This record gives sequence, structure tokens and C-alpha cells, in this order.
Amino acid sequence: MQTQAKTHPTRQAINNAAIRELRSVVGAEHLCTTAEDLDRYSRCTIPWQSVCAAVVFPASAEDVAEVVKIAARYQIPVWPSSTGRNWGYGTTLAITDGALVMILERMNRVIEVNEELAYAVIEPGVTYEQFNRHLRSNGYKLWIDCTDGSGLGSVIGNALERGVGETPYGDHFGNLCGLEVVLADGERVHIGGELRGLHTWHTHKTGVGPYLEGLFTQSNFGIVTRAGIWLMPQPESYNSFVYQINDERHLPQVLDAFRRLALTGIVNTKLHMINDFVSMSILTQRIAEQVPRNGPLSDSNLAALRHKYGIAPWNCAGGIYGTRRQVSLQRSLLRQALGAYGRLIFLSDRLLPYLERIIDWSWKSPVMRRITELGARTSLPVLESAPYVHKILQGIPTEYFVKHAYYRNRHPRPLDAVHPARDGCGLIWFAPILPLSNAHVWPFLEACKERFAAHGFDFYVAMLLMNPRSVICLMAIIYDREDPGETTHSRELYSELLALMRARKLQQYRAGLQSWGELFSDAPEILRLNARLKAALDPANILAPGRYGVAAALELAQPATPADNTTP
Amino acid sequence: MQTQAKTHPTRQAINNAAIRELRSVVGAEHLCTTAEDLDRYSRCTIPWQSVCAAVVFPASAEDVAEVVKIAARYQIPVWPSSTGRNWGYGTTLAITDGALVMILERMNRVIEVNEELAYAVIEPGVTYEQFNRHLRSNGYKLWIDCTDGSGLGSVIGNALERGVGETPYGDHFGNLCGLEVVLADGERVHIGGELRGLHTWHTHKTGVGPYLEGLFTQSNFGIVTRAGIWLMPQPESYNSFVYQINDERHLPQVLDAFRRLALTGIVNTKLHMINDFVSMSILTQRIAEQVPRNGPLSDSNLAALRHKYGIAPWNCAGGIYGTRRQVSLQRSLLRQALGAYGRLIFLSDRLLPYLERIIDWSWKSPVMRRITELGARTSLPVLESAPYVHKILQGIPTEYFVKHAYYRNRHPRPLDAVHPARDGCGLIWFAPILPLSNAHVWPFLEACKERFAAHGFDFYVAMLLMNPRSVICLMAIIYDREDPGETTHSRELYSELLALMRARKLQQYRAGLQSWGELFSDAPEILRLNARLKAALDPANILAPGRYGVAAALELAQPATPADNTTP
Repeated sequence: MQTQAKTHPTRQAINNAAIRELRSVVGAEHLCTTAEDLDRYSRCTIPWQSVCAAVVFPASAEDVAEVVKIAARYQIPVWPSSTGRNWGYGTTLAITDGALVMILERMNRVIEVNEELAYAVIEPGVTYEQFNRHLRSNGYKLWIDCTDGSGLGSVIGNALERGVGETPYGDHFGNLCGLEVVLADGERVHIGGELRGLHTWHTHKTGVGPYLEGLFTQSNFGIVTRAGIWLMPQPESYNSFVYQINDERHLPQVLDAFRRLALTGIVNTKLHMINDFVSMSILTQRIAEQVPRNGPLSDSNLAALRHKYGIAPWNCAGGIYGTRRQVSLQRSLLRQALGAYGRLIFLSDRLLPYLERIIDWSWKSPVMRRITELGARTSLPVLESAPYVHKILQGIPTEYFVKHAYYRNRHPRPLDAVHPARDGCGLIWFAPILPLSNAHVWPFLEACKERFAAHGFDFYVAMLLMNPRSVICLMAIIYDREDPGETTHSRELYSELLALMRARKLQQYRAGLQSWGELFSDAPEILRLNARLKAALDPANILAPGRYGVAAALELAQPATPADNTTP
Repeated sequence: MQTQAKTHPTRQAINNAAIRELRSVVGAEHLCTTAEDLDRYSRCTIPWQSVCAAVVFPASAEDVAEVVKIAARYQIPVWPSSTGRNWGYGTTLAITDGALVMILERMNRVIEVNEELAYAVIEPGVTYEQFNRHLRSNGYKLWIDCTDGSGLGSVIGNALERGVGETPYGDHFGNLCGLEVVLADGERVHIGGELRGLHTWHTHKTGVGPYLEGLFTQSNFGIVTRAGIWLMPQPESYNSFVYQINDERHLPQVLDAFRRLALTGIVNTKLHMINDFVSMSILTQRIAEQVPRNGPLSDSNLAALRHKYGIAPWNCAGGIYGTRRQVSLQRSLLRQALGAYGRLIFLSDRLLPYLERIIDWSWKSPVMRRITELGARTSLPVLESAPYVHKILQGIPTEYFVKHAYYRNRHPRPLDAVHPARDGCGLIWFAPILPLSNAHVWPFLEACKERFAAHGFDFYVAMLLMNPRSVICLMAIIYDREDPGETTHSRELYSELLALMRARKLQQYRAGLQSWGELFSDAPEILRLNARLKAALDPANILAPGRYGVAAALELAQPATPADNTTP
């Protein structure tokens, strides 16, 4: 990643013969080469940019193989993307200009659902929204796990990024089982299976011999064209819960309690714990509040907004699943472990429709609203988020939480069809992972917070329980892309956060393309190992060279170009 | 694998200069080259054999790297093994004669124990027995997960074979986190970490970028010299249980119940379900019973022995862990799901000492024994196994179950220091994995049972819950190595079982060296992929060429030589 200004990226054209060959594979309507289309697919929320040469939409694994072979003949790097909703990390951007971007959204079949063994087989274009709808409308008693990002995100795409969801099935890569992969030379392989078919392909993850699935995550060793995915059988009973911590002095006890609850399996979801600014950014925009239009919220602004919306300094959300007696016991165990440090509220499927009706009435009647807010000890907008939390923890996606990306946007955010990249939002994700220990977490957050403030940004941190021993401290740099100063500062802050992380011997769990160039600066032996594997599988560097720092030749891990400071 | 007779393997000598160099690295006392030593390390319980050229015992990762470099210079294949207790799968045997066998038993340090984050860092020579003793004697409130195999087995070795244990931590590879690996060129890498140190090396499994740990399991891409391993915090409460199924007609309902219990997390251990012959082989030997000395037990023999020992046709064992209230609820949920099809018996830490005392008394007093057996509705020998089951499910290893390997041995089995390879036992493991579904499991078992009978062997099957969707149907061919006919038949049966499995589009979860040559016969694309990776990491085929069918050149996946029919 480079923060100094560079020349604006230039559009590079693809050889006409290659264009003709690609068209003959996918059809002319599935290959974009117009300036307008290329701009559309060269857009992200991060302040770095590259411009692709063409965008291709294959319909099948066979198409993918043909496209890859053509690209190899013409030496054009191919950058595959599932549906391109990876906002804040780089979406469909290639690391350099002139790439052939490949979007797999046409490959969107749910190929199989096995209710007895609780798995499905899907293609990379299947979105959370579509997948959830497919299962529910066909009456399958199986739940998907989604993220709190866009419902139009790809289920497989997120899993291959090793993204994290919500429920006990929230380790998205961990719940993939059996990949179909097209290699750089166009060969198709069934990782963990056999092309002729193998009955355990989607029930036993590791197959026999070297376990290879991991090679195709956060990498560029092949293009996944199909995957098995394990699903949660609809439980007999389910409760979501929110937990409000009002006194920050209790945070160390809460973190210890969460670790113990996770280690003993009482909490088995990807528990989320967010600071006040995260809540704020979901509920409102800077332009809608009486706060400075430049620079961050002061402590008193923050306190005032917390008061206005009835937001606790820290909020947690999670779910409990099981038989009725198990859920009831879990509630009691959570109360016992957490009750002393904050307020724990459970929501069940039975209560949900009442809550939704009360919210509805309260929006219509100011008197009702006052009663509701007094009773709930929070604001109506905060209360309104509870049903979304409840639904997302049973695999029903929503756009509700994605609205945070508009916090510093100068224009009012849309009511639906949320699309931060299209709407010129400024958002960079920074996703370091830490041991789930007070000794590591709080000093690191304190240091990061200080850097956010120094660059004029509000400190946004959502802590996601990766596993009982590790926590992702997901930070968003939300900036105004129309403000050149904020844009420059966002890059500088990002760079400083990376440096701070490295100095503390920490790593990202998932990395945006702006950091790929220095991902292995402290592990050159891993860089070399990855390069050897890449050279074995893709010696000509056809597949996304430089993705996650992996290239057959080490010098190919190049940075993207800083974007100029105008909204696309 | 070949079943036809071949010439006896021949001893091949290593170049004297290489011997001198190896001695200078590890010291003369840690390099074995005498015929006696080579024979000792060329011994297994399977009817295939190879003879190594030397055995080296490095003391550190540095030693390992030096040895590998010397081997590369002299073109000697190196076959690493942790402690060499992989009986029935090949122990320390190389696939061809003339290898340099490397045993890592001197590298047996417990490097770190982190009680807060519930992990340890160990070397490959650390055994289950040592690891369990280390934690308990130092007062750590952490439990290991062991297997029901030898307590002298390597914790890391089993995990790299992707072996399966007992408790909720029974997915041994899944609970490794952070590997130190020496590559074929001697380079040392920290998979998922950095050589300078990374705080999440042992708390976050996948690191950043391509996830590579899987490459070093069931393979030959590097030598693991250190690993992090996640441990179970000692639960507030723990119960083991056994479950006896007397009517085989209930097996389909039981299997359905187990799948549902596993899918909903009520069962989260590697539940074992064994047939009557497994129990029998642990309790007694053929020479000790009034049964034919050649050929299998007839149905009436089996019924008589079942009656004599009070053994049910099928027996299951598992554990439940949690708070006192959780364990009590789990007991009730298990009873509800399983009670109709068999007898469920729970054992707690509180009851254990009473049971042990009763067993003790009963051995001393025939009257007491009669009372105990009537009360327990089983025999004293069966009752005696309960404390071992209880202990193994809390990570305390035992030699008790390994005795099954002596079932057809002509000599009385030892009371302790059980060592089937040393004692000339005949045992081949066959470990296919199936979808956890009645449609797959029972027809396959029926077909295998028929093959066992046709070759004169008793049908031994232990079903191990790999995950809620897959079950390992672990079969042992137990044969008399002193009988040339049985030995030949054991090879023939093994070969037929492999063919039967392949015809049903199934695979092994873990494979003995006798099957490596045809492991990917139905997946040549995986064979090629593995070969490309091998060529990238070990082009000269120095590390265990042919292990799990992986070699830089495809023709190197060669079979071992059938052993001659004499006990070593």
C-alpha cells in the first residue's frame, strides 16, 4: 500500500482478438467493455482505485475454464469475484489496471439441498437473500448463516474470504465442505472428492491425503465454481439477546466472561460487541445531527447522541439455539455470567410479532412512542433494530446494518437498495485479530482510538468472536469521499493502523487489497512458500496476481493506485 | 497395494559419507544402522514390509533441517515419524526399502501452556501419557484429548494423520493451531504465524492469506517440528455414558437419533459405537476360549461368548460435559432420544471410586462377584472396562483397549507394556468414511461383513462419529501372523474391501501405506494436483515420496513389499 499521490490510473484496452474469443464463449451481452461499465466495476468505497479492461460474466464452470484459457493465451490477468459486494475491502477491483474482471453472478444455482444431512450445494452467484428465500419457500427446515452486510453478497465469496457470520455456523469457511475448482490451466478438480462423484464430498471436509481446501481461500490458486455448505437444522427453540454495558470499567470482566462462556460452549455464536459509534452510524448520519460537519464527534457530542438514542457505550448481540429446556438453561447461565455487568434482554419468536406491532404503533403515535421508550429504557430507533438482530441470527439477511457506510456521506442515505460503492460512500475496513485476552485487546484498542482521533475520525470498532481464543477487532474508517482532506487522512490512518498492528505482532484475519503489498513483510518465508505454490499452479500469473500478496514472481504484489478525490 | 507374493525386501546400505555427516549432526548414539535396530524399525502389524537403511533421532528443528539437507545431497528419501505407534497403518515403515527413517521422539518438550486461552505448544515427541501427566501434575485445569490407542502415541503425529479422539476436542487436526514446519530444502516456516513471533499463532488457525496447515496433514510436504494445540478447560461437571443396544432391528432408529443429537449439538463428542466382536477382542483371546483355533467365530460361538461376558450386540460410549445443570439436562435429553432402543448408563466422577472399589472386591470374592454381575446385568470383565471408558473420555490414556490386537495371537497377551508390533500381532486397519445415513451405512457394513466371513475373519467394526454428517466405519482385520494362510487371506480381504469401497464411491478417512498406491485411482486430477504441489516444495522427492500417494513424479507412488509369513 502506498499513501503518496500517484498518477491517475489509466484505462488499458484488451486485444481485439481476445475480445472476440471471449464473446464467442459467453455471448456478447456477457462481456462489458464500454467506459461506463468499466467505471462501474472499478468503483469501491476505499480510497484506492484501478481500472479494469473488461468484465466477463461466465455461466458455468466450462465457461470459466474457457475464459481462463483465453486469458492465458493473451496474457491478461483474470480477477474473479462472486457477486462483487466486498465493500471496504476492494469489491471487484484488481490490484493493477488492465485486468479482466470475472463476475460469477450468473452462476447462481442451488444445485442440491440434503435435509437429512443438513447441507446444500450452491454456485458462487447464490446470494444470502436468494439462498434463505430458496430454503424457506421450499419448506426446508434448514437455516443459512448470513452476515450483517448486504443480502446480495455471495455465500461462497464470503466463505472463501473466510468471513464471519452470526450463528453457530458463523465460521463460513469452516462450514464449506467440498469445492469444485477451476485451475489456471482450465483443469477442473473436486477438492475432497472425485469428478466421478463421491458420497462424502459434502459431508467430510478433509477427504483423504493432503487437505487442500484452504489453498483456495484468501488466495488466487483457482476459481471456485461450486461448493457444499453445511446448514443449521431449524432448532426447536431460539432466542436472540442483546446485552448493554453502561459502565466501561466492567469491560475486562465482560471479556473474561465471554471467553469462559465461549470456551465452555455456552456461547457458540459469533458474538458481536460494538461500541457506541457503531450503533450511531447505523441509526443516523452526520448531516442529520447537530454535530460538527468536519472532524469527529467530541466526547460531549457522543454523550449527547448516546442520550438522544438511548445507546449504551457498548452493546452485544448473540443467539441461543436448542430444545426449549436448553434455551431456558442457556438464558439462566448467561444471566448468571453477565448479569452483574450490564443489562441482558432476550427476544423469542413468540415475542417478535408483538414487538414489531408495538414499534409500528409507536411510530404512528407520539404518546405510544413515549410509553414504549420509557418501558424499553431506550429510543424507538434502537428498539427498531431488535427485530433485525433477531432475524439475522436466524439467517434472514437485511440491509439495515449496511447503512453505517453512509454516516459521513453528504447526501441522505437511501431507504432501500443500499449500495455504498454506487453512492460514493467512503469506507475502509481494517480487521485485525487478537487473542481474546484483556492484556491484548484494550491497550490495542486504546492505541487505535488515539490514531482515529488524530486524523479526525470517529472510532468505530465491532468485536467479533472468531473462536473462544481469538477476537476480530473490526474497525471502519468512515470518511467523506467528497472531501480531499478526509480522503487523504483515511489513507494515512489506515497506514498507521497497519504499522501499529505490525509493531504489536498482530495480523489481519482478512485483508483489503490496499494492504496486500505488505501482508507478509514480517514473514518473507511465507511469501516465498506462497510464491512456490503459485508458480506450481499458475506459473504465468494469470489468476489475480498479487491477490493477498500471492504471486508466482515476488515483485508482482503491487499496490493499487490511490483514487483521486472525487466521487465516481 | 499388491497382494501377490514378491521377493523378500532387501537391506540397502547408506553411503558411508552420508552416515558420517548424519552422525556429526545428531551424535553417533542417535543414528541406528545395525541390522537389529533396522529390523526393529521395519516391523509393523500389517502383512507388508520394507526395510530401512538407517534410523535417525534428531533433537531439534535445526537437527531436522540439517538431516534433510544431507539426505538431499545424497538422494536418500527421509521418512519422518513422530513416535512410531501407528500400528495397523504402517508405523515407521517407508513405502520402499532403503529409506532413512526419522523418529522425532527426542523432541518431546511441552514448550508452553496457556491456561487463560486453553492451549499448549508441544513437540512431536510428546505422547498422550506424558502430555496428560504434565498438565495434571502441574495443576493446569486443562484436559487433553487422547485416542483409545497407545498412550505412547504422539499427540502431533495422530493429529497430522487427522486421527479422531473421544471428547469435544476429538477432531485432532481441527484442534491443532499454528505449525512449525521444516521444508524439504531445510527452510523453517511458521504456518499461520511469523518467525519473529505472532500473538495469534496459537489462537487463530487460518492466519492471513492462503490457509496452508492442511498441506502438512496426510502428506509429505514438510516435517512438523512444533504445534499449538487447543485444550478443553476442565468442565464443572462430566459424565461418561455407555449405551447397549440388544436388538439390532433398532439400529436404524439409533443411527437417526445419533445424527439428530449430533446436528443439534446434544452429542458433541466422537461417539463410538462398536459391534460385539470389538468388545470380545478387548476382553479375551482366541486361545483362551473354547472356540475354533482356525477360522472365525460361528454365530453360536459369538452368541455363547456374548452370553458369557454379558455383551450386547452393539455398544456405544460417549461423554457429556458442562455445568452441573447442563450435564443433568443432557442426560435427560439422551434418555429421551435413546431410551426406547437400548440401555443407557451414566458414570460420574463421584460414582467412579465406588465402582472401582466394587470391581476390586468382586475380583476377590466369588459371592461378591455374583452379586455385582447380577446387579450390573453384565460380567465383571465388561464392568471393569467402564472406568477406562470414563477416564479416556477425560483425556487419560490407557493400554486397555489396544489389547484387541492380540485376539488371534498364539501367545498370551502381556499384562502391561502392550506392543502389538513387537509381539508379532497381525492387525490391518481399514477406515472408510460414510455419510451418516442409514441408506449408506448398513448395506456397506453388510457387504464388508460378508467379505470378512468369506476369508475366515471375524467382523470387527467400530463406528466413530467424525462429525454430525459423517461416520468412520473403522474395521480391523485381526489375523495370526504365524499362519501363512491367514496372512495371505488378510491381504486378499483388504484388497477386496478397498475394491468394494471404491465401487460404492466411498473413500478412506485415513489410509495405511498398503493402500497409498491406489488412493487416487478414481481421482487422477487430485493425484496430478498433489504432484504439482510436491514438485514445487520437494522437487527431488526427498520427503517420504509416495506417502499418501503424493510424489513429485507420479510413478513414485509404489507399493510396499508383502511381508513373508513369519513373525519378526
